[in-house]
Amino acid sequence: MTKAYKGYLIDLDGTMYRGSEKIPEAIEFVKELKQQEIPYLFVTNNSTKPPSDVAKHLREMDVPADEKHVFTTSMATATYISQIKNKAKVCMVGEEGLKLALLEEGHELVEEGADIVVMGLDRQITYEKLAKAALNIRAGATFIATNGDVALPTERGLVPGAGSLISVLSVSTGVTPTFIGKPEAVIVEQALDVMGLTHKETIMVGDNYHTDILAGIRTQMDTLLVYTGVSTKEQVATYDESPTFEIDSLSEWNIVKS
Amino acid sequence: MTKAYKGYLIDLDGTMYRGSEKIPEAIEFVKELKQQEIPYLFVTNNSTKPPSDVAKHLREMDVPADEKHVFTTSMATATYISQIKNKAKVCMVGEEGLKLALLEEGHELVEEGADIVVMGLDRQITYEKLAKAALNIRAGATFIATNGDVALPTERGLVPGAGSLISVLSVSTGVTPTFIGKPEAVIVEQALDVMGLTHKETIMVGDNYHTDILAGIRTQMDTLLVYTGVSTKEQVATYDESPTFEIDSLSEWNIVKS
Repeated sequence: MTKAYKGYLIDLDGTMYRGSEKIPEAIEFVKELKQQEIPYLFVTNNSTKPPSDVAKHLREMDVPADEKHVFTTSMATATYISQIKNKAKVCMVGEEGLKLALLEEGHELVEEGADIVVMGLDRQITYEKLAKAALNIRAGATFIATNGDVALPTERGLVPGAGSLISVLSVSTGVTPTFIGKPEAVIVEQALDVMGLTHKETIMVGDNYHTDILAGIRTQMDTLLVYTGVSTKEQVATYDESPTFEIDSLSEWNIVKS
Repeated sequence: MTKAYKGYLIDLDGTMYRGSEKIPEAIEFVKELKQQEIPYLFVTNNSTKPPSDVAKHLREMDVPADEKHVFTTSMATATYISQIKNKAKVCMVGEEGLKLALLEEGHELVEEGADIVVMGLDRQITYEKLAKAALNIRAGATFIATNGDVALPTERGLVPGAGSLISVLSVSTGVTPTFIGKPEAVIVEQALDVMGLTHKETIMVGDNYHTDILAGIRTQMDTLLVYTGVSTKEQVATYDESPTFEIDSLSEWNIVKS
């Protein structure tokens, strides 16, 4: 199966690896992109790690990647905030990846008087962080969320994801946040900007219909669903809009330069 | 305004006091109940304190009260769990009041293999507590919540209440809990059992239409809304079902023995 594209947006967990398990066909797929000098960008809803850490993890999995190949929802969120207000005062609930992305974009982290409340996954969550964020939202701060994933796959099972923690603030204040990560178009449009390509020149590759593929569909891109992760053929067959391409393994995809 | 009742169920915050501020008419109201030897029971959605602490706080506010005058949503929750399973294995997320109520009822606190996951307000919330609770719910434990209040009034403003913290688990697992506190009938029916009175012999007194009054309505009790707290006449005028009685202050209510 093939079609020529100038660039690839690629999901990580379930597509490039499964937790700590390698997916050899995915590694070969990226090596071939690199070989043919076709641009690729990993687009992830993981807000907790800076891109250098994500790239390091990929290299440990034998995937050719450096920092410039990684675009996280934290980076997209920091950029989105700049479009609302340059050097904004931000009340943040999240981990290192979100913090660094906000600071690199020139925003200021505050506890009171925030222009923006932004929340992502925070495994060091405290009641006080939630209380401060809620008070800032009630005082009129714009509420933004890195991503809506309600569950996080771990070796223990599915534990609460960013989207479920974020519901504390939305339920308590009655304010629904603007979500940035997949399946929203925001993160994909920014990723295309980073690559300098249009949605017609690029394809979105991922294992999760409800995040990766929907994000591609909403951006009017072609999409490639690989059945190595979350979504199953049985599920996808019941959905209104199909991915452009569906394959069992990335080895089935012949990379052709546009 | 008056009607004779054999017993009174009475709300606390907004009805007996406002935060640390006394409401003198409410104090006199309870003193008169005591004088006339009419049974009264304070029914509270506060799951964090044991009844002895609640009674101590009331006495400090000059309200005649001891432990037997207090019925908390934690006590109602512990009793409700016994109706599902005697001496249940319970994974708990909550504070001291909930913990003590569960232990007094003979339940066992566990981290894995729970029959029941119960959650209330927990201002020492951690991600690990939420993760364990979510894993127990996904493994089939019955999910129960002390109360659904989404916001908690404090001197800083409205901060997240039990209901918003609980949404982490409901959003993440897709399982909606059984709520016990007002406006549910469960807590009121149990309070009537504690008093040994029927719903026709008893009146529910409170300041909040959406919790106190609705709980009374759902239990087919008479209800007395006192406008010293959350609800306003303008709001209540728009609701389908009115309280039985509405007054500006408890001094307007003449207590008559049934």
